[in-house]
Amino acid sequence: MKINQFAYVPTSHEQILKELADIRFITPKTKKVSDPVMLYRQFLMKFLLEKQGHATRERILSTIMASPDQSVDEYTKTSATVSKQAFYNVALQLLQFEVGLDYDLSDPIKTMHDLGLPVADVEDPLNRDTLIDAWYLLLNTRTKYGQTLIDYLAGQGYYAQFGRDSGLKKPLFFNGKSQAVFNTSKLIREIVYVEAPIDSDHDGNRDLVKVEVIRPNETNKGIKIPVVFTASPYDQGTNDETADKLTHDVSKDQLTHKTPNDDTLADVTADEPNTSLPPETVPVQMTDTVEETFTKTWTYSLNDYLLAHGFAVVYSAGIGTKDSDGYRTTGSIDETISTTAVIEWLNHQRVAFTNRTDRVGINAWWSTGNVGMTGRSYLGTLANAAVLSGVAGLKTAVVEAGISNWYDYYRENGLVVAPGGFQGEDADILAELTYSRKQRANEYLKTKQSWQHQLAAIEKAEDRETGNYNQFWDARNYLTSDKAQADVLLVHGLNDWNVKPSHAYHLRNLLKKDNLTLKTVLHQGQHEYLNNFRSVDFTDMVNLWLVNKLYEIDNNADKVIPDVLVQDNVKEQTWHTVEDWGTDNSKQVSLADDWFTNVNDNQEFSNHMADDQFKSYVADTAKWRAELYKTSSSAVDKNTIKLLSQPLEEDMTINGSVHLSLNVTSDQNIGMLSAKIVDFGEAHRLTPTPTVLEPLQISLGYNWRKDNLREFTYEKKLSQFKKITDGHINLQNRHNSYQVDEVEPGKAYQVEFDLEPEVFRVIKGHRIGIILFSADLDYTIRTNQEINYQIDLAKSEISLPIQ
Amino acid sequence: MKINQFAYVPTSHEQILKELADIRFITPKTKKVSDPVMLYRQFLMKFLLEKQGHATRERILSTIMASPDQSVDEYTKTSATVSKQAFYNVALQLLQFEVGLDYDLSDPIKTMHDLGLPVADVEDPLNRDTLIDAWYLLLNTRTKYGQTLIDYLAGQGYYAQFGRDSGLKKPLFFNGKSQAVFNTSKLIREIVYVEAPIDSDHDGNRDLVKVEVIRPNETNKGIKIPVVFTASPYDQGTNDETADKLTHDVSKDQLTHKTPNDDTLADVTADEPNTSLPPETVPVQMTDTVEETFTKTWTYSLNDYLLAHGFAVVYSAGIGTKDSDGYRTTGSIDETISTTAVIEWLNHQRVAFTNRTDRVGINAWWSTGNVGMTGRSYLGTLANAAVLSGVAGLKTAVVEAGISNWYDYYRENGLVVAPGGFQGEDADILAELTYSRKQRANEYLKTKQSWQHQLAAIEKAEDRETGNYNQFWDARNYLTSDKAQADVLLVHGLNDWNVKPSHAYHLRNLLKKDNLTLKTVLHQGQHEYLNNFRSVDFTDMVNLWLVNKLYEIDNNADKVIPDVLVQDNVKEQTWHTVEDWGTDNSKQVSLADDWFTNVNDNQEFSNHMADDQFKSYVADTAKWRAELYKTSSSAVDKNTIKLLSQPLEEDMTINGSVHLSLNVTSDQNIGMLSAKIVDFGEAHRLTPTPTVLEPLQISLGYNWRKDNLREFTYEKKLSQFKKITDGHINLQNRHNSYQVDEVEPGKAYQVEFDLEPEVFRVIKGHRIGIILFSADLDYTIRTNQEINYQIDLAKSEISLPIQ
Repeated sequence: MKINQFAYVPTSHEQILKELADIRFITPKTKKVSDPVMLYRQFLMKFLLEKQGHATRERILSTIMASPDQSVDEYTKTSATVSKQAFYNVALQLLQFEVGLDYDLSDPIKTMHDLGLPVADVEDPLNRDTLIDAWYLLLNTRTKYGQTLIDYLAGQGYYAQFGRDSGLKKPLFFNGKSQAVFNTSKLIREIVYVEAPIDSDHDGNRDLVKVEVIRPNETNKGIKIPVVFTASPYDQGTNDETADKLTHDVSKDQLTHKTPNDDTLADVTADEPNTSLPPETVPVQMTDTVEETFTKTWTYSLNDYLLAHGFAVVYSAGIGTKDSDGYRTTGSIDETISTTAVIEWLNHQRVAFTNRTDRVGINAWWSTGNVGMTGRSYLGTLANAAVLSGVAGLKTAVVEAGISNWYDYYRENGLVVAPGGFQGEDADILAELTYSRKQRANEYLKTKQSWQHQLAAIEKAEDRETGNYNQFWDARNYLTSDKAQADVLLVHGLNDWNVKPSHAYHLRNLLKKDNLTLKTVLHQGQHEYLNNFRSVDFTDMVNLWLVNKLYEIDNNADKVIPDVLVQDNVKEQTWHTVEDWGTDNSKQVSLADDWFTNVNDNQEFSNHMADDQFKSYVADTAKWRAELYKTSSSAVDKNTIKLLSQPLEEDMTINGSVHLSLNVTSDQNIGMLSAKIVDFGEAHRLTPTPTVLEPLQISLGYNWRKDNLREFTYEKKLSQFKKITDGHINLQNRHNSYQVDEVEPGKAYQVEFDLEPEVFRVIKGHRIGIILFSADLDYTIRTNQEINYQIDLAKSEISLPIQ
Repeated sequence: MKINQFAYVPTSHEQILKELADIRFITPKTKKVSDPVMLYRQFLMKFLLEKQGHATRERILSTIMASPDQSVDEYTKTSATVSKQAFYNVALQLLQFEVGLDYDLSDPIKTMHDLGLPVADVEDPLNRDTLIDAWYLLLNTRTKYGQTLIDYLAGQGYYAQFGRDSGLKKPLFFNGKSQAVFNTSKLIREIVYVEAPIDSDHDGNRDLVKVEVIRPNETNKGIKIPVVFTASPYDQGTNDETADKLTHDVSKDQLTHKTPNDDTLADVTADEPNTSLPPETVPVQMTDTVEETFTKTWTYSLNDYLLAHGFAVVYSAGIGTKDSDGYRTTGSIDETISTTAVIEWLNHQRVAFTNRTDRVGINAWWSTGNVGMTGRSYLGTLANAAVLSGVAGLKTAVVEAGISNWYDYYRENGLVVAPGGFQGEDADILAELTYSRKQRANEYLKTKQSWQHQLAAIEKAEDRETGNYNQFWDARNYLTSDKAQADVLLVHGLNDWNVKPSHAYHLRNLLKKDNLTLKTVLHQGQHEYLNNFRSVDFTDMVNLWLVNKLYEIDNNADKVIPDVLVQDNVKEQTWHTVEDWGTDNSKQVSLADDWFTNVNDNQEFSNHMADDQFKSYVADTAKWRAELYKTSSSAVDKNTIKLLSQPLEEDMTINGSVHLSLNVTSDQNIGMLSAKIVDFGEAHRLTPTPTVLEPLQISLGYNWRKDNLREFTYEKKLSQFKKITDGHINLQNRHNSYQVDEVEPGKAYQVEFDLEPEVFRVIKGHRIGIILFSADLDYTIRTNQEINYQIDLAKSEISLPIQ
């Protein structure tokens, strides 16, 4: 077991005294205790909650061992000093580690180090001051179950025990992080409607968008707090069945010849959005009281945690969702505006309404005006969109697996390329999926026809025929903006083949240019949240970050949180800070270099295979994958070139985008190439989906929601390989994704492209493989056309970015 | 989609008026409304929560369609009558069915019927009285998401909106079921210690057992409520790692010759437990206030639901668990007493203590004294144990997949036979797994040695050598008792190969003899809870049942709830009431009858196979299973006899235990037989583990916990067969599980045994298969001994109980 903490803020003894007084470990009474042993015992008794009986707490102290022979109850009654040995034996038990299972009592300090937990760097035995410092550090240390000890304590009722009128500070900051002092049993849930300055359904009225607010009751008593906003188009329901039915059948598609063009970027740049709008609705009166409430099913557990910790939480599904006006557009400026309008309301720049008809206005009077965004996938995408819109009030976003350019989500280098696991999906399907507005019967009937027109328009504009970048996609490329004003914490899975790592990579490179604070966390999962893992204190980092950005507390967050934090792909529960994602240092190797063995001695391959074989692969692409990654006697030998490097003499870490330059000839006037870079070698590899270690172990607050404790663990069986990265290109788009060139049959072209950026450690003894082929059944259209390719390996090269 | 309701209580119009007044749909104001249309509109407005603004509610009414052209807002403003068509169009939307997806607006009554939902049997249009009746029925109808509409409304805040001093009845019964009127945001959580009249760790003191109580705050104001008690040995943590390490390696075991005996039942009957006990602890004073509180991770969602609905919930892990005294014994009388002692406290027959040292007594002063038990698996097992102890105060138990005889859990007919999925587990392993007492460091150190002795004693007494029934097992056979006093609702999965269906079957047959009410629900899952399924209103049945048994309200539960309810194994979401489980009607067929084809023409088979083959099967028993169920050219042809019936000419429902009488010869002085009865035929079959249809869709109360909506759905792929039932026997135990007889090599014996009882419909055109073989790698020891068997099929017979 390994725990990695990055959100601890080094703190002076003076400050520690103040903060321990704030959270009531230091009280007028404990202040007078000069004997460290007595003070230690008092800390322990307080730890066991003062609302519990004295005998109960003494009994528990008698179950905690300070040494193999002595409980801490006896120890604090008999010892003259507090030894570090006793302190950390006890500490480990408070942190929920088990004697006999996780450690024995002989060398607790070694155990702390082995687990990755901090040990106070002080003399042995502890004196009064160092005891206080060590206790403070301990409260900020992570337990066995994915929380800091103080968060665990809060979940046990530590803060709640002081009662309503305790004078406890609200908000209360401890080690730079906001504490779970807000009463989650009395949350206020209210609905308002924000009028967004758009008319996405062209009905002559601006679109009203429903907004759900959850805020602590304390805000009714004069406390203003900042807001965490999650814009989730899924939030009001989805149309799974109808969307499934629309899914494009990629096994019916063919690669077709595209008429060459000379398009420049200007030709495909989206038009400025139409700014003529129906008139704004003006409130006829103002109120402080809402009329409508709600209950929710899904909520993001990080938001639930933040609710207890002094942040209001706001959800909005946006235009085209249930109880809102407008249409879904899959990422256009209208969806951005539907998002930023909510931020403007939270930032006091815009009024909202208490219902859809009466024009009674309401301000977000309980909000400080500072807004942060959270959420993964489409939710993170809208956070990206809002950040790049430059909307005022948005101070930061924690962007998890967000799309930064929709072209890169549904297309690649002039090809239709699906997000992993969603073959046949496209912008139109996602629009239908999220158009929950139709779940109200009247809206379904009223908009039935015009919604079909909207869908048809999206289907046409997304252009599955060419796969080219065009105005439709340019309008959905957030990276064309230079308006970002918010600090961003980017989170992405290096095994995310749905929203691929390039989305974070490109956004990062764009934002790096600005004078903003930018942090990046790259994990080994696919499309996953990271706020309930044992091995990393992500939630604490977010807390520290948001306190800094939204509460504007000078807590050193920018300094303490690593710029780039990467989970190791080889060793479980291991996280590294690295200097940057991407490097100028590269290893360039000719594909004809004798570093590579050409497994099948191929310099050519065909896209075509026997019909039966092809059909069986389409029915179960796992079968095809098994053949694709075989290094000998594979059933797709004639359909691939496979190169295998020499076994590595030392570990090699790829950091950034692998680049390929290939000399290719097609025997048709069309062609598409796929490339996989593979780590070959037997190893225990990590599961890209997390394992639940302990269900419902994490308390997000006192008697509040619970979260599962999770981790990426080793797969049960050894595996022989793992894909490092891949990429796909249409030979007619060898210059870029919008310019179409001719492919002359039999003529060789030099084709260059970047593969998905990664950070990947290939260990000593393993081989790096390159697999070149045509149709990628998991991503591209599934065509069995007879197209034959030749690759002149001597004129082809791979460039590996080496850390 | 199919919804099956069994918990609706037919109710007179008089009673309906009273009950609708109790839940505030009929008020002094609505009483005066004589026009059914106006009354309908008022009901709808109340449905949308009076705490919400008028305009908000009118807006929602305008989204609900009464016909394709008219919203119910318009309809109730313009129509002179309430038509059934309009009423049920609206009803379906209130029940969360979606227009366009689940139905169109043309024939809502047909849709109601198709979904299995009740339609009021009244004239069209509705008059004032029939409208009231129809509205009442609608409130008691299940939504699309697994709740009655009134429970859904409660989850939206319907009852909560009336506020603290509303005078709303608490408890409040509606259609015989207790309503979610209790405030779950103010639950009281307290710990007491009950001294059980046992000394299971032989330390000279009676065992103190920790008890966790969760009760509504309303009990502090004079309301006394009944208790739902879950005894869960897993509740305080488990020792997974150390238990795993102890698991027996069944691939090292051999079948050995047992010395014959003449044991009778008397010889293996357990001794009466030692009744000499350390003295009882007498309280030095009494209090009404506890000293200790708790937070929990896992809770049973049915219990959470019941908390909102007026039941206190109590958890206790029992002896040998964290913060309790004593040792785990895997099902002995000590564990029963540790359970019943808690019931005695809840029933005011016993005092508890506020802590472990001060002898301050506390009564369950908030309890009515009526206790029901809930829980699955080991939890259900302890409910069985408590029921059969006859403890006073225990009025009922909802026993889900409980063990009724531990011999049948770990042994079968003189063989060591594992619970499905837990090869190598045994009573000792389970004791270690649940001995969470050692998770307190001092207890771990203090009991380390003597706990090892305890484990060694269990391992010896469980006797893996012979697999015979003995005193150890007899002490763990609850079916030897005739003391049951409680009504029982039995729930079991017909595909539960962990706690097999015979546990429920035998318990049922025992309890049938008593003058108790007994209900049985048999589902198509394996080891699963049933309280969050769409297709059946199990939670409502439990509510109705517990109101009857614990609140002692005459609500017709005994009459309304089916005696035996069985989920169909062929059609999804289909539930039948049947007369009984087990039938006297049987079809007896000689195994030589030409109804059967002998697939391999075998009359003999060997236990032995090639070593490599055997090893590969042990490494992955799925491979072995694939061969076992093949009907031609299987790699285990020489190891099996396979008989295949003619295709059935009509459906055949097996109901009860299949019985085999086999004429067997072994070429050794030992032998074990396994038999599988199989349904052969291509079909979409149900998944034995449920699918989550909608995460967190079910509100267990207002702003209270949420539960996933689940269902057994069809497997994605067609399958060719499914095991119906199986059984195993040691030839030396051909008379019973304790008497050991000689097996003479070469001599034929007539061996008879029952297979696991089932209810299984084999459909027309399918074949019934019988597979006979020796070692069952999934259940028995995995031995590759050379033992050859002969079966004289002409002298062998199968008896199929036919419904």
